Amino acid sequence: MSIRTIELREPVLTRNNDIAARVRHRLEEAGVVAYNLVSSPGSGKTSLLECTLKDLGKDLGIAVITGDVQTQNDAERLSLYTPRLVQAVVTGGACHLDAAQIEAALESILLEETDLLCVENVGNLVCPAGWDLGEAAKVVIFSVTEGEDKPLKYPKMFRQARVAILNKIDLLPFVPFDLERAVEFAREINPELRFFFTSALTGEGMLEWYDFLKAQVSAVRPRPLLPV
Amino acid sequence: MSIRTIELREPVLTRNNDIAARVRHRLEEAGVVAYNLVSSPGSGKTSLLECTLKDLGKDLGIAVITGDVQTQNDAERLSLYTPRLVQAVVTGGACHLDAAQIEAALESILLEETDLLCVENVGNLVCPAGWDLGEAAKVVIFSVTEGEDKPLKYPKMFRQARVAILNKIDLLPFVPFDLERAVEFAREINPELRFFFTSALTGEGMLEWYDFLKAQVSAVRPRPLLPV
Repeated sequence: MSIRTIELREPVLTRNNDIAARVRHRLEEAGVVAYNLVSSPGSGKTSLLECTLKDLGKDLGIAVITGDVQTQNDAERLSLYTPRLVQAVVTGGACHLDAAQIEAALESILLEETDLLCVENVGNLVCPAGWDLGEAAKVVIFSVTEGEDKPLKYPKMFRQARVAILNKIDLLPFVPFDLERAVEFAREINPELRFFFTSALTGEGMLEWYDFLKAQVSAVRPRPLLPV
Repeated sequence: MSIRTIELREPVLTRNNDIAARVRHRLEEAGVVAYNLVSSPGSGKTSLLECTLKDLGKDLGIAVITGDVQTQNDAERLSLYTPRLVQAVVTGGACHLDAAQIEAALESILLEETDLLCVENVGNLVCPAGWDLGEAAKVVIFSVTEGEDKPLKYPKMFRQARVAILNKIDLLPFVPFDLERAVEFAREINPELRFFFTSALTGEGMLEWYDFLKAQVSAVRPRPLLPV
């Protein structure tokens, strides 16, 4: 949206933040850890979630809300990997999810059976940065087939995220991508960023991501988890 | 932006369309072919433009306007490949370029020396679809490291584009990407779409893209072009 629209959007954003606070409170009360997965289109959010559901779904109760501009493709893909409901939100052209959509989607999710809620946002590195969904943290995903300077070009998103996943590392031998520089750029924007290096295709680095998720869930809801 | 903001945005969009019509008229009068390059972040817009400037810059007068949320990185990269001005527009957080920014940028471009204007929009497959910049056509770029279903997931963009570039085809042996299916999905959304298959890294398919650009320029401004 253009800079000229910012004033008009203020009341909408304020209302969004109120709803997000309500969603956050509800999730915290229920002991659910919620992550808002943001990335450009094609960085591999859905593939990462497929693996996570397949490998971690037997240890954790994982609920998923997918946001898509037009199709329910992501939700359909993910449904193959979990017996649980995958809640699809079609934004009908809008470029990000908002907190009201999450609040509505929560109605269909059994929070008492849920340890982890993954929200797959619309593929877009700009707009979702401005919209709090009530998540515990944003996870920004980018891939080695993109430029190393993505953190500098989309600083708001990298500043707001607590976790960064650099995906598709299986393609590193075939692309001119400088991994150290990418991490350096990201840390320049956000020194606190926790990094994971993954390939959803080969499984490389996924165990570290799973261990992180299990630790986060354990911290919120202290009960024994089955080993993976 | 959320669906709730659409009514507020109407006057802004109407104003944008008026400016875009003015820009289009001015470019047509000057015999300049203008393309609006849209894609997700990381699909390779800047690399494609680097090659195009390097290989075609001696035959065509190519002007470039780059839109970036925060940095001038793309403009700086492209400046290395052309003695001409590369006009950078930093949107300051906004998720797309608008026609007023193009109209302002045209003030710095010598239209009488320009055959081809390439506008590199902000990396975003959603928002730029709604904003006419006064271009002759939108060129949508996506890459084989993204999902084949991008056209179905971002139909507005693929419907509005006249040209599609499928980039990074050098990576086809290493990714689970079905090229035929991608083209099929795109044609489902927009049967008129003209396709190019390129690798800005290896140069594969770039000649077809250059021939297309030269033919478009010749059609508008009939004068002899030097062979590449």
